[in-house]
Amino acid sequence: MNLGKKDMAGYIDQTLLSPAATEEEVSAFCREAYGLGFAGVCVNPSFVALASGILRGSGVKVCSVVDFPFGAGGFDSKKEQAEAAVRHGAEELDFVIDLGLVKGGEWELLEKELTSLNRGIKEFSACLRAQTPERQKGGNESVPSVVTKLILETCLLSDDEIVSSCLCAKSAGFDFVKTSTGFAVIKDSSGRSLPNGATVEAVKLMRATVGSGMGVKASGGIRSAADAFAMIEAGADRIGTSAGIKILGEIPCG
Amino acid sequence: MNLGKKDMAGYIDQTLLSPAATEEEVSAFCREAYGLGFAGVCVNPSFVALASGILRGSGVKVCSVVDFPFGAGGFDSKKEQAEAAVRHGAEELDFVIDLGLVKGGEWELLEKELTSLNRGIKEFSACLRAQTPERQKGGNESVPSVVTKLILETCLLSDDEIVSSCLCAKSAGFDFVKTSTGFAVIKDSSGRSLPNGATVEAVKLMRATVGSGMGVKASGGIRSAADAFAMIEAGADRIGTSAGIKILGEIPCG
Repeated sequence: MNLGKKDMAGYIDQTLLSPAATEEEVSAFCREAYGLGFAGVCVNPSFVALASGILRGSGVKVCSVVDFPFGAGGFDSKKEQAEAAVRHGAEELDFVIDLGLVKGGEWELLEKELTSLNRGIKEFSACLRAQTPERQKGGNESVPSVVTKLILETCLLSDDEIVSSCLCAKSAGFDFVKTSTGFAVIKDSSGRSLPNGATVEAVKLMRATVGSGMGVKASGGIRSAADAFAMIEAGADRIGTSAGIKILGEIPCG
Repeated sequence: MNLGKKDMAGYIDQTLLSPAATEEEVSAFCREAYGLGFAGVCVNPSFVALASGILRGSGVKVCSVVDFPFGAGGFDSKKEQAEAAVRHGAEELDFVIDLGLVKGGEWELLEKELTSLNRGIKEFSACLRAQTPERQKGGNESVPSVVTKLILETCLLSDDEIVSSCLCAKSAGFDFVKTSTGFAVIKDSSGRSLPNGATVEAVKLMRATVGSGMGVKASGGIRSAADAFAMIEAGADRIGTSAGIKILGEIPCG
């Protein structure tokens, strides 16, 4: 695969989701990302306003997470947290799926909740844009609506559950499916932690399921340009990683 | 220490917080806890209504978590999630502290946010009770207000940070400080997971800091009666554990 630095940067959501990150660390992280051409910077909800302030005019979108990393916060809470993030300036939102519904096979209820969440936040964001004065929008009436992604936590799912979750996300109108939070805890019988991130197999299955009209974001454990290339070849069109700058450094040509 | 089964049960919040737990599993878990005399049953927000329905009349309180396990969801989101849990029947709420504020040493802002959260949810719960018809309250006007606990995630904190966090929680009016989510990820330099739960040292420090007028809940990694006794001797007056039934089984006398 032949991708230059700039092309690769366009795939990456540069990510800092450690719960112990401070305002100072998140500021430095956003300033470092400014001007590098990343698709986005992904931070926890408590730092969306800060990141939006720093990245204004950079072309780097502010992405946040919703009900992260468990997805067990309930429908109302997901909705409120998403709206707060958009109010504070988030342009992309990565929702964690309700894993209890997935593991219980409650596909009908899941699809209903996802449809309502997705439609609700898109309407909310459209409404907020309509109320924003022209000069704050940079005179651009066609600013796209908030981009929605659904995190499946594929390391905890069977192939059938991945396929059904992808179909729910697609039917609900989400823009992307995303593999992983990067924070799932899975252990073998002796208590050792097992890998919990994106795999080439999961990304291929997700791409095959959703087709070409929807995004696939690979995230979790992607630490090198080789990892990122493998995910893109498998069908990912977005990469979530905390190693974005290292990855760009590993690509020789501009 | 000489504690019977019944005494020990009164210390325990029997806990199921795995994000992949299904409705069926949570139902079975609550039915199993019914009648065992636990202080409470602790579940994710998405299962509070279910648990409340099952445990009504059992004397076992329904406890839920707020902004779990990261605590990085932002003030508004914590507030909304707490209110939704109380509306759905939660009687105790374990809030995760905003670790970014702790690690950044922003004690003044932290105390202000905690005071507002604690006061807000107590008022909300009082208001809701006042609107509830007598028969639903079981004719008991003196139902206590929602109990609030603040999870510090002590495995990520220095002793000074534990002390300052305890003082903030106390000044904000929280009823308990609690050691751990049980889901923090800490690794050594070779990538091996390190213990992330309650320690005797942390519980002693928390008890010494808050004095006798406030609760201390030890949680994370407590799997046996011996673990539980050690925490109680160190000063804990509540134990969060997923092994409550196993622990009671290890205590011979009634």
